[in-house]
Amino acid sequence: KHMFDPKEHQHLRYNPLRDSWVLVSAHRMKRPWKGQVEKPPEDNIPRHDPNNPLCPGSVRANGEVNPEYDSTFMFDNDFPALQPDAPDPGSDHHPLFQSKAARGVCKVMCFHPWSDITLPLMQPVEIRKVIDKWADLIVELGAEYTWVQIFENKGAMMGCSNPHPHCQVWASNFLPNEAALAERCQRDFLQKHGEPLLLQYARMEAQAQERVVVENEHWLVVVPYWATWPFQTLLLPRRHVLRLPDLTPQERDGLASIMKRLLTKYDNLFEVSFPYSMGWHGAPTGSHLKEDMGHWQLHAHYYPPLLRSATIRKFMVGYEMLANEQRDLTPEQAAEQLRKLGEEHYKMKKT
Amino acid sequence: KHMFDPKEHQHLRYNPLRDSWVLVSAHRMKRPWKGQVEKPPEDNIPRHDPNNPLCPGSVRANGEVNPEYDSTFMFDNDFPALQPDAPDPGSDHHPLFQSKAARGVCKVMCFHPWSDITLPLMQPVEIRKVIDKWADLIVELGAEYTWVQIFENKGAMMGCSNPHPHCQVWASNFLPNEAALAERCQRDFLQKHGEPLLLQYARMEAQAQERVVVENEHWLVVVPYWATWPFQTLLLPRRHVLRLPDLTPQERDGLASIMKRLLTKYDNLFEVSFPYSMGWHGAPTGSHLKEDMGHWQLHAHYYPPLLRSATIRKFMVGYEMLANEQRDLTPEQAAEQLRKLGEEHYKMKKT
Ligand SMILES: O=P(O)(O)O[C@H]1O[C@H](CO)[C@@H](O)[C@H](O)[C@H]1O
Ligand SMILES: O=P(O)(O)O[C@H]1O[C@H](CO)[C@@H](O)[C@H](O)[C@H]1O
Repeated sequence: KHMFDPKEHQHLRYNPLRDSWVLVSAHRMKRPWKGQVEKPPEDNIPRHDPNNPLCPGSVRANGEVNPEYDSTFMFDNDFPALQPDAPDPGSDHHPLFQSKAARGVCKVMCFHPWSDITLPLMQPVEIRKVIDKWADLIVELGAEYTWVQIFENKGAMMGCSNPHPHCQVWASNFLPNEAALAERCQRDFLQKHGEPLLLQYARMEAQAQERVVVENEHWLVVVPYWATWPFQTLLLPRRHVLRLPDLTPQERDGLASIMKRLLTKYDNLFEVSFPYSMGWHGAPTGSHLKEDMGHWQLHAHYYPPLLRSATIRKFMVGYEMLANEQRDLTPEQAAEQLRKLGEEHYKMKKT
Repeated sequence: KHMFDPKEHQHLRYNPLRDSWVLVSAHRMKRPWKGQVEKPPEDNIPRHDPNNPLCPGSVRANGEVNPEYDSTFMFDNDFPALQPDAPDPGSDHHPLFQSKAARGVCKVMCFHPWSDITLPLMQPVEIRKVIDKWADLIVELGAEYTWVQIFENKGAMMGCSNPHPHCQVWASNFLPNEAALAERCQRDFLQKHGEPLLLQYARMEAQAQERVVVENEHWLVVVPYWATWPFQTLLLPRRHVLRLPDLTPQERDGLASIMKRLLTKYDNLFEVSFPYSMGWHGAPTGSHLKEDMGHWQLHAHYYPPLLRSATIRKFMVGYEMLANEQRDLTPEQAAEQLRKLGEEHYKMKKT
């Protein structure tokens, strides 16, 4: 009988934030890929395009004209999935045909006036402005709504329909599925183990170093032990922090710096503007602002789809949709690859 | 205050098979799409390609030569995510770093000797042979393994790396996440309501007709009330059936017929070979074969990604990955579109 080697022997790993398992089959990387090849992202995006509704001075779908903004810029999503005033579907439902009201708002936030820039190429002080706006949004929308989801879809491969650097914010009067899972798992963990899940986790990862990608005084980025996407990462503060507005000025500067370093490594991995969906999970807001939410720890997830190169992605299909998520390299291998990469952006070297 | 209209007013719907919610925001279909456009699938696939390892007579990666098969053909996956003999990672784990053994087998099954044919274009007697093989597989692999996942990834968009019509079978010594969810939900429902979830559901849908796509004496296909993917469907027997091998010869013929009708409608929707992932969920096997699994009802899920046309898909990204799945048309609208389509395949009309 062989010794167990995670790089050679498939096994399941437990995700304590989602109470589910991921199948790790690292030997699958040996298989040749003959399937779909992705278009690499466009590389000659004009800095300013008057027809792009996200640019300064452009006219949007609703006829409004954007200001000549020179930093971040926020506006209401012109095609919102959540609106503040939808009528209630009622409550007298059969158990197999249950519906409930969903109310909320959807906003878009541009990171920068230029269309041809991305977060890793922005200055730390510019990224800091994005972070401050995120924190303001949680205060503003969190006063009314239970959950304020800040997320960025980057790259056409991730369904992003506009190359201008931006994120979205969808606030809702309900806890979305993923938030409800994170809420339950963190609450149960604190009760059972006496320490917030992600505080204990960050401490242990910082000590082990095996899955750490970048770190600084205030923050830690790891490929989590239970990562599903090939180069998925988890961004964690070292201090116990419930929500973005609770971050100190120093922690915000530290966050700007570590985001730039992480995203530069991502871009350097395959020398391409790395596609991903990312988002923040902080303690629920609205009526929860008055409750003890000490089981929560603020964190951000990065879910990037690329697997082997700028044009070969991981597909979460078939077995993954119907049975179980599965990954083709170990989280430790992914962390090592990212860790070894330089922190100077490949585009800066080439010019 | 307006009256609630599901086509105009976003709301949440409950999925009783997964104990989670989906956000239905049908008014989002009005938004213009400027994002990624998919390559339509290749339309001139050679009937026989000696270099395609799935064709009759071809040499596969491990050096084996395929027989000159004239119906279905099964072989072991040359790059299996599950192998029968992986060593155990041990059991003395910290709660945040838990792993467990995963053992299993992965097989590939070709549906037909031709590469340029798909299920909807096959004869019912040919589809019947596929169904019989599926049932045999559940018997054969189910004797040893807890879960036998039969699934088909169709189309390059769904990560399918070979155009030859085929499905996969991954059998495992563990209940995958999705199987464990379906197990728990169906078990709880029977206990609470005294009738298997999907039997009650099929009866109610057959009566309402609102979400029915196709039906015959033995089978029913609906866009489920809680569908997540735009044109997702659920295929259900009318009789209480635990697993594929339990189907009578008549039910198998009825299944071949209804699969052909459903998949023809799918292809006719955007006049393209419709991509999807599909798979069978029957009662768990292995040691469960001896248990009372009466809460289970056999069913198949079809998860197709296309939304607006042959080249515009739904992206499950950002908000969907980090917060909550969201759909852009109501299940009732999707069912009506599919129902209205003809049952003669568009490729047959054109020639
Ligand atoms: O085994 P294949 O067809 O090469 O691979 C495809 O199906 C698998 C099972 O759904 C997935 O894990 C892969 O990501 C996908 O590309
Ligand atoms: O709002 P966008 O950027 O047009 O749309 C994108 O993000 C949304 C939120 O993740 C998804 O629902 C859409 O499928 C995706 O294309």
